[in-house]
Amino acid sequence: MTLLVSGWVALDAIETPFAKVKQSLGGSATCAALAAAQFTDVRLLAAIGEDFPEGEQAKLEGRGIDLAGLTTIEGGTTSRWGARYHYDMNTRDTLFTHLGVNDGWKPVLPAGWEDSSTAFMAADDPQAQLGLLGALPSARATMVDTIQIYIDTAKKGVEAAMRAADFASVNETEARQLTGQASIAKAGRALVEAGAKAALIKLGEYGAVYASPDDYFVAPGYPLEDVVDPTGAGDTFAGAFMGYLDTAEVTPGEVRRAIIYGSAVASFAVEGFGPSRLLELTRDEVEERYREFRAFTHFEEAG
Amino acid sequence: MTLLVSGWVALDAIETPFAKVKQSLGGSATCAALAAAQFTDVRLLAAIGEDFPEGEQAKLEGRGIDLAGLTTIEGGTTSRWGARYHYDMNTRDTLFTHLGVNDGWKPVLPAGWEDSSTAFMAADDPQAQLGLLGALPSARATMVDTIQIYIDTAKKGVEAAMRAADFASVNETEARQLTGQASIAKAGRALVEAGAKAALIKLGEYGAVYASPDDYFVAPGYPLEDVVDPTGAGDTFAGAFMGYLDTAEVTPGEVRRAIIYGSAVASFAVEGFGPSRLLELTRDEVEERYREFRAFTHFEEAG
Repeated sequence: MTLLVSGWVALDAIETPFAKVKQSLGGSATCAALAAAQFTDVRLLAAIGEDFPEGEQAKLEGRGIDLAGLTTIEGGTTSRWGARYHYDMNTRDTLFTHLGVNDGWKPVLPAGWEDSSTAFMAADDPQAQLGLLGALPSARATMVDTIQIYIDTAKKGVEAAMRAADFASVNETEARQLTGQASIAKAGRALVEAGAKAALIKLGEYGAVYASPDDYFVAPGYPLEDVVDPTGAGDTFAGAFMGYLDTAEVTPGEVRRAIIYGSAVASFAVEGFGPSRLLELTRDEVEERYREFRAFTHFEEAG
Repeated sequence: MTLLVSGWVALDAIETPFAKVKQSLGGSATCAALAAAQFTDVRLLAAIGEDFPEGEQAKLEGRGIDLAGLTTIEGGTTSRWGARYHYDMNTRDTLFTHLGVNDGWKPVLPAGWEDSSTAFMAADDPQAQLGLLGALPSARATMVDTIQIYIDTAKKGVEAAMRAADFASVNETEARQLTGQASIAKAGRALVEAGAKAALIKLGEYGAVYASPDDYFVAPGYPLEDVVDPTGAGDTFAGAFMGYLDTAEVTPGEVRRAIIYGSAVASFAVEGFGPSRLLELTRDEVEERYREFRAFTHFEEAG
């Protein structure tokens, strides 16, 4: 069983009220791949520039991630993104986005990777996502994510990619923007009515909502104590979700477990800058947090 | 078993993007008492003016609420509050607050009401809350709520009332303001460290968090589809919580159930203007929603 992860590998500059880093390993695919690697074998499909530090590549290899799809673009520079978080750590200003090698790059599946059992396509041009989905006809579970810029510029494409995948992952703002529904419950239902096979709406610190034709699930947020850097939490969530699902049957009960694993791994990710916490995370820690999560949320039937 | 509910009975003028009402039965104690009456006998202690419509009083009597403590102040006018909700229904502008009879009124326990088994003191001057708590030494569970104005003007009193009661109920903003902690998990713990025996933090549509020295519980929000009017949802939650607890042992498991009952009843309250939905709500509907809530949130232990 192998999960394909595609998206961005980037270098991030992040400022919080408490600290800053100038050039930290980042990007949607990085976070998702590291999270998924807790559960299964991961193949990473992304573009980097010649300036990408070897040390960062070694970090990914150190977690057992297959980098045969990590493509160095000759003469290109790695994508860079900078942001500053406000005091509450829930809102941020994007300081800059340099597309670099991701400007126009179209991911192509390396030879032999058609047998990936599952796939997660982090936010990207929806045509690129659709191309990859078409190249993976036998994958038994696929998920696409998106970001605001593609909803603004290519909404029909985003909707087509969401219909083509088994799971569509969006955050709260994106769910409202795509559906025009203020209610999260209605937005989830509307995404399914618009053709998504299942919708996962990430609510940040408040957890997640899952809607499909045959299930509806609401998970509260893990009680976070010290948020050092929320960057990439959504991709971490999605990566862990798909990583767990790669090892399980795709049933409503397992999907619920996958959401809790997603929350658990994301709750670690925000404890450090960039993916630093994920680079040292152990499966035992993840299992312990899953158990805590259940202890924090369980309640009995009515007496 | 009988729950005492004290606080405001008021007449509200509410505007939402979709409708408006000019003079609707409202007030913290009204919502809490109607919610609690789903579960147990309720005594209502509040002040009204001579202008309070008999029809509104009949609505409360119709739900079996004991109005011996509903005190008509001669020559006084009932408190009035007006607000306008924004499009997202999560934010509102207060248009006016007329204290009326609640300007300086000190609630006094009617003769015979010292035997109330539990009590909920909705937001009020903390000295009034402390007075009532002192008059109920044998109540086996008490809860106080507050609002921003008392945190701004009488923070030490608010903290004293929270230490004196068994449960302190606050919303997210109030929890952060009282503790100086941005993290809800830390704020809950900080309230307990500051002397609250247990803290219930209401997160609106995102559910609630409960912290005590021996338990921590996070409940997600019920998936709300059509929010007509969120006014009083927090007091409804608190009233149902205490109403259920009046019928149960005060154990961690029953406290968790009480929180789910609180969420369930509050999810009905927002479906109508003011307390209109509560006035026709049946216990069967509440039980059905509790079961739905469990179905929406349950997940298995790790496999």
